[in-house]
Amino acid sequence: MQDSNKNFLDNIKYPEDLKKIDEKDLIQVCKELRQEIIEQVSSNPGHFGASLGVVELSVALHYVLNTPYDNLIWDVGHQAYGHKILTGRKDKFHTNRKYKGISGFPNIHESEYDSFTVGHSSTSISAALGMAVSAHLNNEKDRRTVAVIGDGSMTAGLAFEGMNNAANTNADLLVILNDNNMAIDPNVGGLNNYLLDITTSQTYNKVKKDIWSLLGKFNKINANTRSVFQKIEHGIKTVLLKQSNLFEALEFRYFGPIDGHDVNHLVKVLEDLKKIPGPKLLHCITKKGKGFEKAEQNQTYWHAPGKFDKNTGELLDCSCESTPLKFQDVFGETLVELAKKNEKIVGITPAMPTGSSVNKMMEELPDRAFDVGIAEQHAATFAGGLAAKGMLPFCAIYSSFAQRAYDQIIHDVALQDVNVVFCLDRAGLVGADGATHHGVFDLAFLRCIPNITIASPYDEHELRNLMYTAQQKDMGAFAIRYPRGKGRIKNWRNNMEILPVGKGKKFKDGDRTAIVSLGPIGNLASDAICEFENANPDIKIAHYNMIYLKPIDKELLSEIFDNYENIISVEDGTIVGGLGSAIIEFMAENSYARKIKRLGIPDNWVEQGTQQELYKECGFDKEGIKTAIESFEFNA
Amino acid sequence: MQDSNKNFLDNIKYPEDLKKIDEKDLIQVCKELRQEIIEQVSSNPGHFGASLGVVELSVALHYVLNTPYDNLIWDVGHQAYGHKILTGRKDKFHTNRKYKGISGFPNIHESEYDSFTVGHSSTSISAALGMAVSAHLNNEKDRRTVAVIGDGSMTAGLAFEGMNNAANTNADLLVILNDNNMAIDPNVGGLNNYLLDITTSQTYNKVKKDIWSLLGKFNKINANTRSVFQKIEHGIKTVLLKQSNLFEALEFRYFGPIDGHDVNHLVKVLEDLKKIPGPKLLHCITKKGKGFEKAEQNQTYWHAPGKFDKNTGELLDCSCESTPLKFQDVFGETLVELAKKNEKIVGITPAMPTGSSVNKMMEELPDRAFDVGIAEQHAATFAGGLAAKGMLPFCAIYSSFAQRAYDQIIHDVALQDVNVVFCLDRAGLVGADGATHHGVFDLAFLRCIPNITIASPYDEHELRNLMYTAQQKDMGAFAIRYPRGKGRIKNWRNNMEILPVGKGKKFKDGDRTAIVSLGPIGNLASDAICEFENANPDIKIAHYNMIYLKPIDKELLSEIFDNYENIISVEDGTIVGGLGSAIIEFMAENSYARKIKRLGIPDNWVEQGTQQELYKECGFDKEGIKTAIESFEFNA
Repeated sequence: MQDSNKNFLDNIKYPEDLKKIDEKDLIQVCKELRQEIIEQVSSNPGHFGASLGVVELSVALHYVLNTPYDNLIWDVGHQAYGHKILTGRKDKFHTNRKYKGISGFPNIHESEYDSFTVGHSSTSISAALGMAVSAHLNNEKDRRTVAVIGDGSMTAGLAFEGMNNAANTNADLLVILNDNNMAIDPNVGGLNNYLLDITTSQTYNKVKKDIWSLLGKFNKINANTRSVFQKIEHGIKTVLLKQSNLFEALEFRYFGPIDGHDVNHLVKVLEDLKKIPGPKLLHCITKKGKGFEKAEQNQTYWHAPGKFDKNTGELLDCSCESTPLKFQDVFGETLVELAKKNEKIVGITPAMPTGSSVNKMMEELPDRAFDVGIAEQHAATFAGGLAAKGMLPFCAIYSSFAQRAYDQIIHDVALQDVNVVFCLDRAGLVGADGATHHGVFDLAFLRCIPNITIASPYDEHELRNLMYTAQQKDMGAFAIRYPRGKGRIKNWRNNMEILPVGKGKKFKDGDRTAIVSLGPIGNLASDAICEFENANPDIKIAHYNMIYLKPIDKELLSEIFDNYENIISVEDGTIVGGLGSAIIEFMAENSYARKIKRLGIPDNWVEQGTQQELYKECGFDKEGIKTAIESFEFNA
Repeated sequence: MQDSNKNFLDNIKYPEDLKKIDEKDLIQVCKELRQEIIEQVSSNPGHFGASLGVVELSVALHYVLNTPYDNLIWDVGHQAYGHKILTGRKDKFHTNRKYKGISGFPNIHESEYDSFTVGHSSTSISAALGMAVSAHLNNEKDRRTVAVIGDGSMTAGLAFEGMNNAANTNADLLVILNDNNMAIDPNVGGLNNYLLDITTSQTYNKVKKDIWSLLGKFNKINANTRSVFQKIEHGIKTVLLKQSNLFEALEFRYFGPIDGHDVNHLVKVLEDLKKIPGPKLLHCITKKGKGFEKAEQNQTYWHAPGKFDKNTGELLDCSCESTPLKFQDVFGETLVELAKKNEKIVGITPAMPTGSSVNKMMEELPDRAFDVGIAEQHAATFAGGLAAKGMLPFCAIYSSFAQRAYDQIIHDVALQDVNVVFCLDRAGLVGADGATHHGVFDLAFLRCIPNITIASPYDEHELRNLMYTAQQKDMGAFAIRYPRGKGRIKNWRNNMEILPVGKGKKFKDGDRTAIVSLGPIGNLASDAICEFENANPDIKIAHYNMIYLKPIDKELLSEIFDNYENIISVEDGTIVGGLGSAIIEFMAENSYARKIKRLGIPDNWVEQGTQQELYKECGFDKEGIKTAIESFEFNA
């Protein structure tokens, strides 16, 4: 990497500054913006490859559009670092994804340039359509609306629904398809092959061109053939220009594909498209990680690397000492281990093979592991279909994305009473990704579903035991939730055993106060008890690990309510509707009257930060739990 | 209608009997089956037009396939009456949709011929793909899988996700597109226009044919032009046969369109398709209501008419006396009334203009009312986009279908903190549609979302008042749930007033026991109290109508907990996580100890029946509530 001189970028605070720059200098602006992103992300980790891929698009859009009056929606939003730097947040960018800092995603509450809060995939077309329709209804004829969406996001049903509806409205909407053939992992599915075909073979464009020149020729040469040709000319036009293209078939005017790294051409095309009314799609070919060699070469890894050397690309912080695995890796390894013994097991991931570690099974048992694309709804119903015919799907979905499969979990799995294991990764507070990604609602939204089993392991051994239990005969719908990040056990590969469904564990007895925890957050309860007891050797605090939220262990709860006057529930999920609610429902049903404190996610949105910072904010870090104990023990 | 002689059908109990019939007699079989459906549905109301439209398809499929070994999945399933009659349920068909009778939809627990329980739209391709993959993994090479899906269902994102993934698997899967240009209401969207274009102009087929004949001609006539042609011949083939068709673009082999009412041709085509491996789509054109003139003419009405004369089509039970309106109609009328005064209001329905009564606004204010197709996810995100730019969408979704918009309600509305009113129709137990359609989870799944307001009116006046309240300034995400069916008030058009958010109402005082209810089910509580007090004049029972579940009226709850020793909560939603849970959460937080009975949907699946039968089964009909009162008053 050469000089970090940023003569242009230094003078750009807002898009109005960008607009003053001569068009020919935009190439240099892009160079500087790319360098800025590399420098920022190398020292303050975040999403990387996606933003590098849309540097030119970000510059061209803000050059051509009249933001924030014009509506610009970035799908998913992890590619919006360039956009943020160009819209007043360059000076704050070192706080990206940090506690009380700026969000790693566009956020409607952070800047008027962020038209919509994003994070989950494939919302941009629908949201943009809403904004375009609003502009139409308010007669704001000069107001443009642009959605930038990746080819991966385009595979989700929501995007299709948005496209299908947009055709009906005649809304002035430009969808930019940012096609890099990658989401986080390489894309899959019919649409992906279709886009590849358009792009690489260039059949579509070639034929379009050739047909026209051919028609020209024939019109000159042969009266006999001309009549045949005229008869079908209209037909050819219709077919080739309207139906031969997936997007045109949906009544979007299709433009492209064009090179998404040619900023001057982008500016020209975007200017031209301003003059074309109605729904239209511009197909841009870009490269994820563009301009940083290592990121171009290994796009999945460099989607969101840790710290790295901005010049050499050498990874920093790559601690080589043996630390515990991530929960997802214990899941991934165990899935392979179980699947080798139980031939009914299949693995499913909606576009997160690496993030969920289902890639391990895809490597070892490729016929039985499926990346279904960004399609959580389909993932669950597909699992239901497999299970209806005797297979046993382990469907790994991030907790917050499982919200998108909610109806399918109810209607296509639980109601069918078929055997599907939902492995809900990234459950609880996820840290730097913030409010859009916290997986905090699952306990509440699953608990009301009849017949479902809901479990969360205290540690890696219990995770393995739960997976082992879930693949026993006729277990029905079975959800196992576990958090982002690492556990505590280095020797995670235990001999798996069954954890009887609906049975919790007593960890230790106590005097007057009992803590009831669910999941790995129970480790913080253990730490808090340990510290409290060290400081107060005369007082013992009981600790129970429920393991199963549903069916809940009523025998164990009776023991707790019979023996303790104070009860503290600890869960990494919403206080409303989760473990704490289940416990007090039990209390009410059995006419107990005990003092109860429910620790968990309070009834408000939690933004980004480290997991520790957020646990503290929510009052269930070690100190928070200790405070709860003290308030019972010392103020009673 | 002529004779009801059913010489063939009388001898068909299972598909094996059908297979014995000579192919030429299938036309007569269809005639008899159609007559059977007309007779059955005329006297025992249910879905009508859809099943008439697939009589020939039902007969042909069971004639050609080896069901139940072969997997046959009917999308939505309200068209499966013919299928049910042909698969062992003719004699039970008079119990269709009745309490303890057979389900109005295919049900995996009812018959081995029903491969999958259906009810919600667009699940069939994903489920079928799972079954086809299962057959592949188990090396069952002779096992076919067929999904029958309507053109309306095809607009949902889930169907697209399934198609997109199927291309990747090379699964032996036949999707039959049952294209009648109708769901319940006429279809909308780009896909619909595309299908119409294929079907009506026949451009695709015509051009395909003409191109080939043209190519033949040119090969003979002109060496000069031939080279040009050869150069692009491959291109034309690719474009026309692969890309020119939306489904081929998604790597489905496309066949059709064919006449879905020509049973002999269907048999032939289905036999031929057996020999073609991989994912393929057969496009059938059918007519909803086929063979019953009135149903063909007014397809929306005859989707599910009441009782009618099987010969004349005259509607029976059409009581002309003035009864109260349905809740949906009060909603629809009120929406228009409000929208005329508040120009920010827009109406949205995902494919249910008639069912939700949004059609009233579509008629009166067509620019501001949107039928977005079967696309609940998009409906919510589209609403979020509109609201982000200052519009005020009233988004009407059936409660059980809102499960499909769950992530979007959280991520694209509540988290954005924009103003969207979700009008959740068909909330609570819906009656004859059964388990797939009960809207019983909404209270639990919404209550954990920060910032959302959740309300349910006691009667039509409160519904109007809540709608009036919801369109006040900056109300954020606001859900109003109301049930299927009629209210009690004939003079429903009150002068609307604001119901302060988070404020309930005391209906009456009592001695020791208070009933706390939410929504119209509170009327049953009123009835129960009335009857109880008439029988026990010395005992008074208090009644509180919460109106808002969230924020819940803590002041009112304090009053209740301060003054009553027994509390009964009554809600038409799951006991787990709803009103009752909210009340005991309040009790625990405020260290009250009272006896509480929570009446609502128990933690199991509830099948079909009348609403009254189901309330009784769940224990919150008038008698059930009275029993709860008595158990407190007489056993204390």
